[in-house]
Amino acid sequence: MVEEMNLRRAFTLIEPGPVVFITTYDGEKDNIMTISWTMVVDFVPKFAITTGSWNYSYASLRKQRECVIAIPTVDLIDQVVGVGTCSGDDTDKFEKFRFTPVKGKHVSAPLIKECVANIECKVVDIIKKHDIVILEGVAAYFDTSRKEKRTIHAIGDGTFVVDGRKFDRKKMMRTKWADII
Amino acid sequence: MVEEMNLRRAFTLIEPGPVVFITTYDGEKDNIMTISWTMVVDFVPKFAITTGSWNYSYASLRKQRECVIAIPTVDLIDQVVGVGTCSGDDTDKFEKFRFTPVKGKHVSAPLIKECVANIECKVVDIIKKHDIVILEGVAAYFDTSRKEKRTIHAIGDGTFVVDGRKFDRKKMMRTKWADII
Repeated sequence: MVEEMNLRRAFTLIEPGPVVFITTYDGEKDNIMTISWTMVVDFVPKFAITTGSWNYSYASLRKQRECVIAIPTVDLIDQVVGVGTCSGDDTDKFEKFRFTPVKGKHVSAPLIKECVANIECKVVDIIKKHDIVILEGVAAYFDTSRKEKRTIHAIGDGTFVVDGRKFDRKKMMRTKWADII
Repeated sequence: MVEEMNLRRAFTLIEPGPVVFITTYDGEKDNIMTISWTMVVDFVPKFAITTGSWNYSYASLRKQRECVIAIPTVDLIDQVVGVGTCSGDDTDKFEKFRFTPVKGKHVSAPLIKECVANIECKVVDIIKKHDIVILEGVAAYFDTSRKEKRTIHAIGDGTFVVDGRKFDRKKMMRTKWADII
C-alpha cells in the first residue's frame, strides 16, 4: 500500500545517498533520468541535484520547474543502469523499462509505481554557475507493502553497493532528530 | 599503506553518499564535524556540502577556505555519532575521540589517520542563500592496508545503514565512466 509520508520525514529518503530517478514532464511527454549527485539542503525538505544541459531532462526542469524524485530498490538495478545510459531524446523510457507512470497531486511529472518511494518536487532555484538545481519537496509517498526496501548506491565506476545491516543510534542522537521528525 | 589516489577517482568516495567527517584548522586549533549532506558536483573533483553558522566549523571554512573530507568506516560508527553530537566550541574532538591528525600537503586542516580515505579540499565558493559550500579536491588518499572498508550512510533519524553486497555493471555503463576515470 502506498502511504503519504509526513513531509518532515522525506529528507530521510535522500540523506543516505541512494541513486534515484528524476522524472519530468515537458508538456508533451514524460521522461526519466538516473542521478546520484543529490544532497539534502534543508529539512523542509529541500534538495540539491547537480544537472545541466548535458541531461535531456534539464530543459523540462527549467521550463516546467517541477519533477519527481523516485527511489528505486536493488531489484531495479538494471533499470537504473538502463535509464542512465539512454536518452529521452530518442527513447520513451517508461515504455522501454516497463515503468508505470502515476499521476501526482501537485506536479505534472509522474511518480513511478515500481519505486519504493516518490517525492513530488518544485524547482525553487537554479544555480547556473555550479549546475545545481534546488528542489522543494511538496509531497512524499512510501510503498509500505513492498518487500524489497534496500536502496543502492552508485560508486561512479560502474559498480554499486546495496544497503546492508542497519545500526540504531537513536538514543545517542536524540538531540539531533527528536525536534525534527 | 596510505596511497595517494588519482584525483579523477576521488569523486567515487563521495558519490555513494557515505557519512563523512570534515576537518578544519582555524589558525589555532583543529576541529572535526560529521556531515551527511554532501554531493559531487564535478569530476574535477568538486563537491558541495550544506553547512552554515549553526556548525562551529563554518567560521573556519569561511576564514581559512580549506578543509579535509575524511571518510570513516563502520568500525568508527560511535565516533561518527560522537563527533556529530558535541561542539568544537568546547571540545577537542581529536583528543576526545582519539583520532590522529596527519599533516596534509596542500591544506592546513588535518587528515584523520583512522579514516579509510581523506580528500584535501579548497573552498572555492559559498552560496549563502542556500548554505552550500563548494569544495575542490586537490589531493586524495586511500588506506589500502585497512581491512574494514565498508562505509556507513546516515538515514537522518538516528539510524545508519552499512555498505552491503556489491554489484558490477561496468560493462553496461562503459560509456559513462571509461573516459572519466
